[in-house]
Parts: sequence; structure tokens; C-alpha cells
Amino acid sequence: MARDPAALARYLTDLQGRLCAALEAADGRARFDRRHLPGERGGEARPCVLEEGAVLERAAVNYSHTRGERLPPAASAARPALAGAPFEALSLSLIVHPHNPHAPTVHMNLRRFEAHPPGAPALWWVGGGFDLTPTYGYAEDAEHWHRNALAAVGAERYAEFKAACDRYFWLPHRGEARGVGGLFFDDWRGGGPAEAFALLRAVGEAFLPGYLPLLERRAHQPFTAAQRAFQRYRRGRYAEFNLLYDRGTRHGLEAGGRTESILASLPPAAEWRYDWRPAPDTPEAHLAAEFLTPREWVRPPAGRR
Amino acid sequence: MARDPAALARYLTDLQGRLCAALEAADGRARFDRRHLPGERGGEARPCVLEEGAVLERAAVNYSHTRGERLPPAASAARPALAGAPFEALSLSLIVHPHNPHAPTVHMNLRRFEAHPPGAPALWWVGGGFDLTPTYGYAEDAEHWHRNALAAVGAERYAEFKAACDRYFWLPHRGEARGVGGLFFDDWRGGGPAEAFALLRAVGEAFLPGYLPLLERRAHQPFTAAQRAFQRYRRGRYAEFNLLYDRGTRHGLEAGGRTESILASLPPAAEWRYDWRPAPDTPEAHLAAEFLTPREWVRPPAGRR
Repeated sequence: MARDPAALARYLTDLQGRLCAALEAADGRARFDRRHLPGERGGEARPCVLEEGAVLERAAVNYSHTRGERLPPAASAARPALAGAPFEALSLSLIVHPHNPHAPTVHMNLRRFEAHPPGAPALWWVGGGFDLTPTYGYAEDAEHWHRNALAAVGAERYAEFKAACDRYFWLPHRGEARGVGGLFFDDWRGGGPAEAFALLRAVGEAFLPGYLPLLERRAHQPFTAAQRAFQRYRRGRYAEFNLLYDRGTRHGLEAGGRTESILASLPPAAEWRYDWRPAPDTPEAHLAAEFLTPREWVRPPAGRR
Repeated sequence: MARDPAALARYLTDLQGRLCAALEAADGRARFDRRHLPGERGGEARPCVLEEGAVLERAAVNYSHTRGERLPPAASAARPALAGAPFEALSLSLIVHPHNPHAPTVHMNLRRFEAHPPGAPALWWVGGGFDLTPTYGYAEDAEHWHRNALAAVGAERYAEFKAACDRYFWLPHRGEARGVGGLFFDDWRGGGPAEAFALLRAVGEAFLPGYLPLLERRAHQPFTAAQRAFQRYRRGRYAEFNLLYDRGTRHGLEAGGRTESILASLPPAAEWRYDWRPAPDTPEAHLAAEFLTPREWVRPPAGRR
């Protein structure tokens, strides 16, 4: 963004277009519902949502530029003193819920906040990352996902952001991770605006090479009705995380954002079964035991990049 | 409870048994899964959950006696200074999700808290109430529900608790109520322990006469697959409320309660559709317009009871 948030806005809207085009191509049938909604104080929202595709049951790629009079408490966990200050936010959020239960759900967010506390200098920071949530665990998928994340940001940042991702996407009431993680950072300024822009760009450009190979590999794998039911059960956990804990969801709703854009992250369908446990030694049981406990999926090269 | 929380514990477990028996009789087929789980520090939990009945898709009638070392912030909205104090809680929670989309979902809670702040006298209070959530709105059902609530607590308390219920069961991000409301009270001491016990008992005894006639009236009404789908869509809103806003859910999870008991309140299945709106002048459109906007369902008698 250099000194210029407008450059980041241009990058994010361009990336949004490329992500939508790539997801439409991967689906092969459905098209995004693309809208452009003017916001208050010169802001805007560009929600793009696709439903009931051949491959993608739901995908949302939402860009928003928000100018608000009061920063919601959820926006900056590290800087609670800024709550209530006028703010400006740029955000690109992506979620993909594929139809095939063997294909993982995926999420990415790239955001920049700028707060204007009264009588103090403006303060900016960026946040974001991406994370993968399989219904059925495949070690080779998780390894590809993490190798790609490591290549995108380098070994030092990968170690930090991977650990932050494991901490953030955690369901304490279930004692399990949302998925196999990826990268997460927040309240990040690095060496300044240019480095922050470069980080957002590195993550944004790494998304498709990380996800599309997995989607291509799994989208046409045979599956059973029981596996689809397990997917709905697991999507219950996804809804729990997003509604109970996700700061982006809470911030968006607190800030009076467009509900249908914010909650487009929710799965198309979710189920809850009382005290249900998968039978031992099944793929359903392996998911929690082997994939939803944080672990190292790639070994960073010795020494720093 | 007089001076004796044990008397309330006896009342709540007795009521739990009667509620389970009445719901089993109404279902005619399914039986509750009844468990008795010893808790920490002499507490106990008695979760009773029924699933996939002939009439009831899910019902939970959960009793718990919790002794904790630190009162979670969500437990007392009116007394934040008590957060962190040792506490003791008795709670009976009921939720019924019937199968038939014409039959309303219902919820009741009765609870007593006692906090032991260090260096200060112990403080107790009660809370609870019941509320009704129709998928398809029937004015005669809402009127019966509210007439019964009015008769249970009298005109003065009805007016107060009905208004509190409308405020509490509100989804700000949707601009709509969870349902047609009922009674809600919290941080209540009234004229002392005997009056508080009497209030909990009045609400507890009024539940079956309020709900069973509606269940009997609607449980066998014909319905279509589209109406079942609308029920799953509306149950998405129920999941949103419980996970985003409900203090009982948040308190229970924060306090380290049994997740499967607490989240037994969630619907068996929920769906989300992007920016969906019912066609004008349909029963689906009438729901939000006529039933999810707080209104007076009964006219209390002139003068105070």
C-alpha cells in the first residue's frame, strides 16, 4: 500500500476478480452473483457469492471498504484502547465449501485497518491468512497446503503464523482445531507499509496454488450418502467456530456490516447429533485424532530464508 | 428454596422427570437418553436428550448443579463485579425441536445462582423463563402461549418479563426476534428466597399447559418438503442466536460445562441460503412481518392482579 491504501484497494479488487474467475473455472457451471453496494462515508462492498455449483456448494469472495465512526472491540485484539475510534478497513474474505466431502473447505482473509483515535496519530495494521478444513483427512493434502504456505512467506514467518493459526482456529469447547490450519497474523506492521503490502500480496497470490490442486484432486472422488452426512455434521463445528469465536464475523456484525455477506461464510447445511462419536478405526475417527490436533506438516529448511 | 437450595434442587429434578415423561407421552415412540454424571466439587449433571422421535426431532431436558471456582462473565449481566467469584448454580434447561414444521420450537430455563465474592457476603439470584419459536406463525398459538404465561405470573410481572423476553431473544444483525417470546427474567430476587422459589415454580408448572396443546394441535398437520426446508432455514437463525448471543450457552461453555449437554439446544439440522427472501404474501413472508416483530399477544386485565 506504500503510503497509499488505494493501491491495496486496487490490488484486493483485482485479486477478487481473479479468484472468482478461477473458482468459476474450477466449478465449470455456476457463476458468482456479483454485487456492488455503495457504503456509508464513501465506503463500498463488493460481495460475490456462488451457490449450488457442480463442484462448489457455496463460495463467497467478498471485498469491502468500510469507513466507520467507532472501531468495534473485536477488530483489534491487541489494541483494545482503540475501540470506539473512527476507522477505515479494507478486507477481502474468501470461503469455499465444496460439494464433495473429500474436498476440503477453505478460508482466506486479507485486511488492513486504520484507526484514528481522537488526539493521537492514526495507526494502521494488517491481518489475514488462510486455513484448510478437511472433512476427510488426507496427509498429502495437508502437506501440500503447508508446503505452499511455507514457500509463500518464508520459514521464519511460516513458523510464527502457522502457530498463530493453530491457536486462533481452535474450538476450546471441543478440544479440537477447526482444521489443519495454515497461516494467521493480526495487528501486523512488519517493517512498514511496503512490507505489509508485500505480505498481503504474498498470501493472496499463494491461495490458488495452495487450494486448486486439492480441489482438482478431490472434487470428483466417489462418495457415499453417509460421507455427505458426516460432512454436514462436521459443518456444524464450522458454524460453531464462526458464530462463537471468529473475530471477523463478530467484528463485522458489531460494525453493522451486511449480514448476508458476513454470514456467507457459514456452511450451506449443518447438522448436530447428540453425543455422537465415530466408530474406532474409521476415517471419521482419524480426522479428529490425526488432523484436528495441531502438528507439523512440513519441516522448514534448516536456517532462515 | 426457602433458605435451602436443596429444596429447589429437589423441585427441579422432580420437574425434570415430569417433563420428560410428558414429552415421551406426546412423542409416543422415542425415549430420553437419561444420564447421571457426577461433577466437580460435589456437583452433578443429569442430561436427558431424545432424538429422532415420531413427533420430536430433538428434545433436551437438562438439569445441572454446578460448583465452580470462578463465575464466568456471562453468568450475571447485571453484576459484572461478581465475575471470577466462586459460585454455585442450579439449572433446568429444556428445548424441544419438533419434526413437523407447523409445530413450534420451545425453550425454557429455570436457574438459581449463588456467588461467594471474597471478603463479601454471598449473593443469590434467580433467572429463567420460556419462549416459543414458530416456523409457521399461527396467531391462536401465540395467543394461547401468552395467555398461559400471563396466568402463570400475573399481569404486573407478565408485562415486565414479556418485555424483557422480547429484548433478550432479539437478533440485532437480522432485525428480528427469535420467535414470539414469552417470559424472561434474570438477576431476580423479588421479596426474598420464598418468593423467588415460588416464581420458578410458577413458570415451571406453566410450561406443559402452555406447550402441549400447541404440539398436539400441530404435530400431525400435513406438511410439504418445501416447508421442511423452510424449517431448516429458520433453524439457521436459531443456531445463530444460540451461538452468537445466548448467555446461557456462552456461560456454560465458558464455565467448562459438558459441551454435548449445552449444545443439545441446537437444532438437529440448519441451512443457510445467500440473501434469500420469501415470496411476498406467503406464510413464509408473514412469519417475519407478523410474528418476529414484538407485539402484544394478550391484553392484560385492567388493574393489577
